[in-house]
Amino acid sequence: MSLVVIGSVAFDALETPFGKTDKIIGGAATYITLSASYSVKPVKLVAVVGDDFPQSDVLLLQEHGVDTEGLQIKEGEKSFFWSGKYSTDLNSRETLQTELNVLADFDPIIPDSYQDCKYLMLGNLTPQVQRLVIQRLVNRPKLIVLDTMNFWMDVALEELITTIEMVDVLSINDEEARQLSGEYSLVKAARKIMAMGPKYLIIKKGEHGALLFCKNKVFFAPALPLEEVFDPTGAGDTFAGGFIGYLAATDDISFDNMKRAVIHGSAMASFCVEKFGTERLVNLTKEEIEARERQFAELVNVEPISIEA
Amino acid sequence: MSLVVIGSVAFDALETPFGKTDKIIGGAATYITLSASYSVKPVKLVAVVGDDFPQSDVLLLQEHGVDTEGLQIKEGEKSFFWSGKYSTDLNSRETLQTELNVLADFDPIIPDSYQDCKYLMLGNLTPQVQRLVIQRLVNRPKLIVLDTMNFWMDVALEELITTIEMVDVLSINDEEARQLSGEYSLVKAARKIMAMGPKYLIIKKGEHGALLFCKNKVFFAPALPLEEVFDPTGAGDTFAGGFIGYLAATDDISFDNMKRAVIHGSAMASFCVEKFGTERLVNLTKEEIEARERQFAELVNVEPISIEA
Repeated sequence: MSLVVIGSVAFDALETPFGKTDKIIGGAATYITLSASYSVKPVKLVAVVGDDFPQSDVLLLQEHGVDTEGLQIKEGEKSFFWSGKYSTDLNSRETLQTELNVLADFDPIIPDSYQDCKYLMLGNLTPQVQRLVIQRLVNRPKLIVLDTMNFWMDVALEELITTIEMVDVLSINDEEARQLSGEYSLVKAARKIMAMGPKYLIIKKGEHGALLFCKNKVFFAPALPLEEVFDPTGAGDTFAGGFIGYLAATDDISFDNMKRAVIHGSAMASFCVEKFGTERLVNLTKEEIEARERQFAELVNVEPISIEA
Repeated sequence: MSLVVIGSVAFDALETPFGKTDKIIGGAATYITLSASYSVKPVKLVAVVGDDFPQSDVLLLQEHGVDTEGLQIKEGEKSFFWSGKYSTDLNSRETLQTELNVLADFDPIIPDSYQDCKYLMLGNLTPQVQRLVIQRLVNRPKLIVLDTMNFWMDVALEELITTIEMVDVLSINDEEARQLSGEYSLVKAARKIMAMGPKYLIIKKGEHGALLFCKNKVFFAPALPLEEVFDPTGAGDTFAGGFIGYLAATDDISFDNMKRAVIHGSAMASFCVEKFGTERLVNLTKEEIEARERQFAELVNVEPISIEA
């Protein structure tokens, strides 16, 4: 089923306790589309880069089944750039540099061939731009998923709330859920946020898993305890891409299927953090992904008590 | 199956963002025995209090099926006292006052009627005293579970390690696992700690659930997302009491049954935090406990994909 993804396609420079990178391909939409591409093809990308963005990276996306018709390449301009440094325990990060460049006046153009969009993933961006994409689609998609971050809560809260009202699923982390709702209890926070509009709320808790809320129902997907976490960059976007990719591929938006989509997204994210940037994400096999999903099932599996017991 | 519990029985004075208490009954062994008593009776207690400890609180324990023959009451001495204040988000606490009193020279006496001990729970105490209990049992119990805390890692690491070597299950929190092993990754930490002796390791992560490790196997039990957390005091001890109570009642120490014990312990802990101190823990029904265990199962339950899908 037709999946459209909007978000940043950019350069990142990363520093973790395990090493550092020069400018490498990054951005929310990069992680989302790559992750989703393991479930469904094509993944129709709406994004903007400068003419400094290597053709080889565009090809990399295309080879993964990403439709780049909606990727604008601005002559004479530079791509969005972010550099950051992670703390020793990888639990916090400091932004060293942010250059908006082409993102400063991003006008998302939706190609006609994208108008069949049934699943829309709004990756982290200015809420105004996210909303513009919804407005420029002739028919409302069957499902709209919005990912955002605390930055927009700080600088554009009203715009963000207006955008949140228009979506079906909101995906944020625990601190953001607390900030947005003003409630410490995630159960209370979820109730308040769903009252803002979204029928479903995903609260990402990083190494502590993810919660999926719908009305009074809640589902919890653990994160896999990992031997090594190398670089958390893009984990949340990879999760979101796996989530919406799974839903688009199965075309089933029941709560039960959303649970499976959350587990699939968690499995995809668990690969992402094993290497720098998108390195692990570009070379996965179906078998590896399925094996990891089985590990997730095993992790919480309890055998029923046998009759003899 | 015969269960013996050692640990502190004490007074706590608690301050949380939701209120404060005067001296109320507390201590690791209080929470452990009360929690275990919902699975198995009697729970044989080894502890020491001063003559300031109210007879009504001894009766309260007895009414829950706690055998207090091993509870020493020291004339002219005072019970252990701890007071603490929790941060706004309940995630950290400050010790305001610690008075060791009778615990300073606690010599744990094991009544003859306790020598049939098959399940031994060593609640948080000086590692030397915990070890003494093992040594004073004529036959080694079938299962020894040790709970401890970072304080002993700071002030008595060698003693603690000698005690850890002697037990089957170690129960600590994530920060303590990292401190004890020197590893940030909990998978690596678990491997190092199990190499110290215990066949099983439980890593408690508070509101983020608990992990159970055995060799290369790992099980994760989520914590229930709660509407209100009122007072986290005793949650870890309540978990441990539920865990060993369940094992003693079922007399099955297979990994599969330990998983069920972890879920039962998590359910018991989820009640504990709903009120101050032991308030919620002294008035539970079997039905409430079973209903909560079903909520835990529901929380991670994924329906298999239907054939039509």
